[in-house]
Amino acid sequence: MNLILLDAGALDQDHAVLEGAQARHALDVLRVSVGQEIRIGIVDGAIGTGRVTGLAEERVELQCALGDVPAVPDVDLLLALPRPKVMRRLWAQLAALGVGRIILTNASRVERNYFDTHVLDEACYRPLLVEGLQQAQDTRLPRVSIHRRFRPLIEDELDALSSADRRLVAHPAADATAVASAWPADAARVLLAVGPEGGWDDFELRLLTDRGFGLASLGTRTLRADTACVALLAALRGGRQARASETARAARHDA
Amino acid sequence: MNLILLDAGALDQDHAVLEGAQARHALDVLRVSVGQEIRIGIVDGAIGTGRVTGLAEERVELQCALGDVPAVPDVDLLLALPRPKVMRRLWAQLAALGVGRIILTNASRVERNYFDTHVLDEACYRPLLVEGLQQAQDTRLPRVSIHRRFRPLIEDELDALSSADRRLVAHPAADATAVASAWPADAARVLLAVGPEGGWDDFELRLLTDRGFGLASLGTRTLRADTACVALLAALRGGRQARASETARAARHDA
Repeated sequence: MNLILLDAGALDQDHAVLEGAQARHALDVLRVSVGQEIRIGIVDGAIGTGRVTGLAEERVELQCALGDVPAVPDVDLLLALPRPKVMRRLWAQLAALGVGRIILTNASRVERNYFDTHVLDEACYRPLLVEGLQQAQDTRLPRVSIHRRFRPLIEDELDALSSADRRLVAHPAADATAVASAWPADAARVLLAVGPEGGWDDFELRLLTDRGFGLASLGTRTLRADTACVALLAALRGGRQARASETARAARHDA
Repeated sequence: MNLILLDAGALDQDHAVLEGAQARHALDVLRVSVGQEIRIGIVDGAIGTGRVTGLAEERVELQCALGDVPAVPDVDLLLALPRPKVMRRLWAQLAALGVGRIILTNASRVERNYFDTHVLDEACYRPLLVEGLQQAQDTRLPRVSIHRRFRPLIEDELDALSSADRRLVAHPAADATAVASAWPADAARVLLAVGPEGGWDDFELRLLTDRGFGLASLGTRTLRADTACVALLAALRGGRQARASETARAARHDA
């Protein structure tokens, strides 16, 4: 881990104590000594450093100096619940890539028993999200919500869940925009919908497009849900960045 | 699987026989019947359809009609060998995303015992590559080579392994180009180098840049090797595509 993430409650003024797995990581992997500084963060709060002031078995005392609070990631994800094995792999990767919200939904091609897995228990997924944040050196824990009914989610609940000003649904239609070109320059946040392995059905696609989702495609290769999520997020952000540089270059060229 | 991939040797004129796991998949998952057509491909060859002409236990006979041969993917990957667990997860994802070559190398921050894993045995990784191709509906099996010595690989062997006309090394330096902007419009193929967790060391970076690798960055978030590979490939291709559309749009605007 490249940063140790503490709960806000773990901080007493500028003092914090690492215990359990975090203490063992500091002692056994980072091999800290008194006076050494390590990178720390507060869940949903600031990033900074902790100077080791005391050591004991399974206990590391820190004096903390905190700096900036990272911005909330600029993408929310609406994801048709994948197989538990795939979902388990996704948690840390999504937190590492940075998403504001993870909205998990049912869909006609999602098997109902996927919802019964402990991979959807907060006790299971929160440590995985924290692992991803510690890897990526971020503090912004994705908000997670789980929805067993697709239509009420899209029709009634989605507006309150995501404030994104652009909505995209990943779908390999011939008339879909390439996802790398789909983030308008004037949109601050995107809500990206990613379907189940067999895709959204016609009803679901119509409901999404009726609610403002534009079709966006990664190409003709069909990818497993976890690969697809990572690739879509990277292409979406990469494309936006590349177009911004291209526009800046063209402006310099014109001037 | 979205396509069943056959070895060239399995084809006798336009007839093929599925056996073992492939036959079971056709019988139990696709539930094929005589006369039905399924999507097939030949390893490194054409994609087409197979019409079921006979069924038996663990045996499906097909009459095949083959079409186009997919192009070799336009990116080669030079990858510092990750942990076996991560490498196991990567094989199918790399094949699904499409890479021409997977060149695995040692580096100073790669642990030597990573090379002793059976995840590097062809008997282990070939079925995983095939699984990825079947998922993505491609036939181009990535070429794999494994190199225990970094310097001879880069200095003596790399030119023969990859014909890419642009070389990039993923590295989060302040002066690195964003990876989404790093694929020049006039380069047909890219060779992308991805380092170990912990990064390339200074000697390795100098050797790579001396041999024409430009620095390319995905941003400041540090990602696990498998997430990083998928995200880099997607941002690289997405960025190229977005810039191409932007250039076309600007040209229309000027005209």
